[in-house]
Amino acid sequence: MVCAVQVYEKPKLDNPVLIEGLPGIGFVANIAALHLIHELNAKLFAEITSSSFQDLAVTTEKGGTRSPITKLYYYKSPEGGRDLIIWYGNTQALTTFGQYELCGRVLDLAEELGCHYMVTLGGFKQEQITTKPKIYCAASDPETLKTALNLGAKIMVGQIFGLAGLSIGLGKLRNFKGFSLLVETLGIYPDANAAQQALSALSKFLNLKIDLSRLDFAAEKTQKILESFGWIKSGTKEKKKEESQLRWFI
Amino acid sequence: MVCAVQVYEKPKLDNPVLIEGLPGIGFVANIAALHLIHELNAKLFAEITSSSFQDLAVTTEKGGTRSPITKLYYYKSPEGGRDLIIWYGNTQALTTFGQYELCGRVLDLAEELGCHYMVTLGGFKQEQITTKPKIYCAASDPETLKTALNLGAKIMVGQIFGLAGLSIGLGKLRNFKGFSLLVETLGIYPDANAAQQALSALSKFLNLKIDLSRLDFAAEKTQKILESFGWIKSGTKEKKKEESQLRWFI
Amino acid sequence: MVCAVQVYEKPKLDNPVLIEGLPGIGFVANIAALHLIHELNAKLFAEITSSSFQDLAVTTEKGGTRSPITKLYYYKSPEGGRDLIIWYGNTQALTTFGQYELCGRVLDLAEELGCHYMVTLGGFKQEQITTKPKIYCAASDPETLKTALNLGAKIMVGQIFGLAGLSIGLGKLRNFKGFSLLVETLGIYPDANAAQQALSALSKFLNLKIDLSRLDFAAEKTQKILESFGWIKSGTKEKKKEESQLRWFI
Amino acid sequence: MVCAVQVYEKPKLDNPVLIEGLPGIGFVANIAALHLIHELNAKLFAEITSSSFQDLAVTTEKGGTRSPITKLYYYKSPEGGRDLIIWYGNTQALTTFGQYELCGRVLDLAEELGCHYMVTLGGFKQEQITTKPKIYCAASDPETLKTALNLGAKIMVGQIFGLAGLSIGLGKLRNFKGFSLLVETLGIYPDANAAQQALSALSKFLNLKIDLSRLDFAAEKTQKILESFGWIKSGTKEKKKEESQLRWFI
Repeated sequence: MVCAVQVYEKPKLDNPVLIEGLPGIGFVANIAALHLIHELNAKLFAEITSSSFQDLAVTTEKGGTRSPITKLYYYKSPEGGRDLIIWYGNTQALTTFGQYELCGRVLDLAEELGCHYMVTLGGFKQEQITTKPKIYCAASDPETLKTALNLGAKIMVGQIFGLAGLSIGLGKLRNFKGFSLLVETLGIYPDANAAQQALSALSKFLNLKIDLSRLDFAAEKTQKILESFGWIKSGTKEKKKEESQLRWFI
Repeated sequence: MVCAVQVYEKPKLDNPVLIEGLPGIGFVANIAALHLIHELNAKLFAEITSSSFQDLAVTTEKGGTRSPITKLYYYKSPEGGRDLIIWYGNTQALTTFGQYELCGRVLDLAEELGCHYMVTLGGFKQEQITTKPKIYCAASDPETLKTALNLGAKIMVGQIFGLAGLSIGLGKLRNFKGFSLLVETLGIYPDANAAQQALSALSKFLNLKIDLSRLDFAAEKTQKILESFGWIKSGTKEKKKEESQLRWFI
Repeated sequence: MVCAVQVYEKPKLDNPVLIEGLPGIGFVANIAALHLIHELNAKLFAEITSSSFQDLAVTTEKGGTRSPITKLYYYKSPEGGRDLIIWYGNTQALTTFGQYELCGRVLDLAEELGCHYMVTLGGFKQEQITTKPKIYCAASDPETLKTALNLGAKIMVGQIFGLAGLSIGLGKLRNFKGFSLLVETLGIYPDANAAQQALSALSKFLNLKIDLSRLDFAAEKTQKILESFGWIKSGTKEKKKEESQLRWFI
Repeated sequence: MVCAVQVYEKPKLDNPVLIEGLPGIGFVANIAALHLIHELNAKLFAEITSSSFQDLAVTTEKGGTRSPITKLYYYKSPEGGRDLIIWYGNTQALTTFGQYELCGRVLDLAEELGCHYMVTLGGFKQEQITTKPKIYCAASDPETLKTALNLGAKIMVGQIFGLAGLSIGLGKLRNFKGFSLLVETLGIYPDANAAQQALSALSKFLNLKIDLSRLDFAAEKTQKILESFGWIKSGTKEKKKEESQLRWFI
């Protein structure tokens, strides 16, 4: 066992889009995915644990426990829009080996549900950002790139770390099309403003109306969860001095 | 092979409780489990080695060898009380990968014996402790939490490292209920006093009378074993400057 | 899954020679292999990803993505010369475990195509080099060594790191014959001059005429690709302070 | 694949003793095993590579290559003495995972040949040693311990690192009996004197006459091989500042 997958339901979806929203730079994707799940009332259908996650439990405020996990939610669009698979979680894997395994399992599940398109979200670390941070993109192919550029994103130059980048690459080998949206962020706290930019572009792509008024709620919840796992320091906006393994944070 | 499991006996147990008692912070769980095994005359039924343990042997005083290992003992309650599976050992795994594998194997064995409930023990590292250290808890679910709170434990806020935490999380995915009891400790030597608190609460939960007068014997034996493996320094009460892998020590 | 292999074609080859050309010291092999692929118009027939590669994607200048990968190309010699399998890529594996797995998979594929002979290329790091850097060699057996010495190479004394060395060793266990050609290099930038020496010797061995006039093009492209993955620093000729894992760089 | 085993012959042996002789502290076991192989004209019957070995090849003086490997030799005693399986090699595995796997494979092979007894050799690092270094021992069981004590060894107190210790432990789980002989050594160069002590005790145990006059030859050859792999520094008697993984060196 590297990953243990529990599938609670096999939803019938119509050509769904996989949205990657795991913790990473500025926690942009993580906040955005959590908000999407809340707003769309997306339904949990699978959970994945991995022996490349941390070996601990963290406590919730009410005396419960929370474990390192990633989860898959689905959203069936009522009006013939795009169905979604949202990949959410409180961690990425601690080793590259774990990252590839985890990504492979999720792509397996997505393919089974007829998914051949993905959007991965992330932060693009900058020393300084403006009030309205810019969005960058990269895509699996020129046609998909056009789609991303049409959302107002510019061409990214650099590296897309962790599962946001890996998913695009491993997806391409399975004939997934897809693009990454990377929003400028200082990358040192859960950045609700950057997440808002990501969601604006994403909702334009999906032709979905998403109420962003409660985005702060998702950002705060994200902050609490990530604090409990030690990914960010409690009480401050400084990111924890990351361990060398946490390559997807830098 | 990651883990090699040798099962010597498949005892018939009635809805047993799994007690986790591996080396960790303050060695609270380790002392408590060893004492339980002695006092209850629990019987060894399985041994598990893992390629994620140290690659060495240590010598005993009499010229024998001792290897890194974890062991499962059972106790059949004579008076209709709860049967027990006690998970004891001289190490945890050195990698998170190894921890998940080891935990999975033990849960497999426990499930086969009809076990769906676990109590994990541990230390909660503090800079200062009082004569009667406090006990903290976290649980898989609200009802189980009540049970733990009724033993005099307070709600834990923080991280439960190593197999004490991991077991609760992986257990939940298999529908195990369970709670962790974490006793305040300085965490720098095998803490018999903290182990006593853990055992008092545990015996209350199990409705078992456990003679604690010989607890020092278990603490000394624990000290010797852990010294031989280099987990704690010989002759002093200082903990060995732990290697970075030994995350379950803090 | 450690490696995922995608085979697009199973070419019929006549006793082909496997040429190893992955990034390593001075990127000698990498430049040489890329140039060979260009000049011989070699055809891609298999791609291999590994969970021991980096977990990221890098962007291309046009907004596309590039992932860590190794690729196999074939060249069918039109005039009864030696057919070739060229092993090219933008990375080696990050762990020794990954290196052995990757090498095993490539040897599997090569054997299936009737290959029993390999030439691995590389740099031999020196503090100082002359305009015409010397070539060193080592071989699987005395007869093959003679072949290499006849190309003007001297006997290598030292270690052949990474897949250039590992392939020879694992190949021997499968009755592959083969030799390594290692060219002196400072090892701090993609060394087109060293690659030229390697190609001269190789073309002599293969009795192939290879136009070396466009070698700078391969060196520049290699530089760009390796910069994008962070193996070498952008804009300078200094090699990135390599992570400790990157043993094949020195 | 973690280990790849090639068996060239399945010798018929009568209750053979497995002798472990891999590189370790003072290279005592390694020298002793090589000398035994020479003197007894032991025959190679299996080779084992592992993806937990180094990923390189080293050159021989004559332009050949040598790869990280361990090998099994057998010796059939002509006069009804004990048959031997000698486990020799130029490395141990770089990870504990690799060590367990390698040990498991060798024990598999040994069991197939009817072996249930092992002697592991090693150095016991001391700051100072006398001309006639002392021998220490530890054993799988009290009766076997007596055997070892009768050879003039004293009871070891401490840790037996690497495969010398691991083999005893994993062997016990398979009902092997066995003991370790550990000779005092400074541990900073291939220690022929310590190897001589080990061989004297071993030959007494095996009731074998072993000519020790050419032991220096084995020590020199061991030095050369280990230098080529970088385990010890060339030209000096200082041990290379070992990487943290090389736990079996101390």
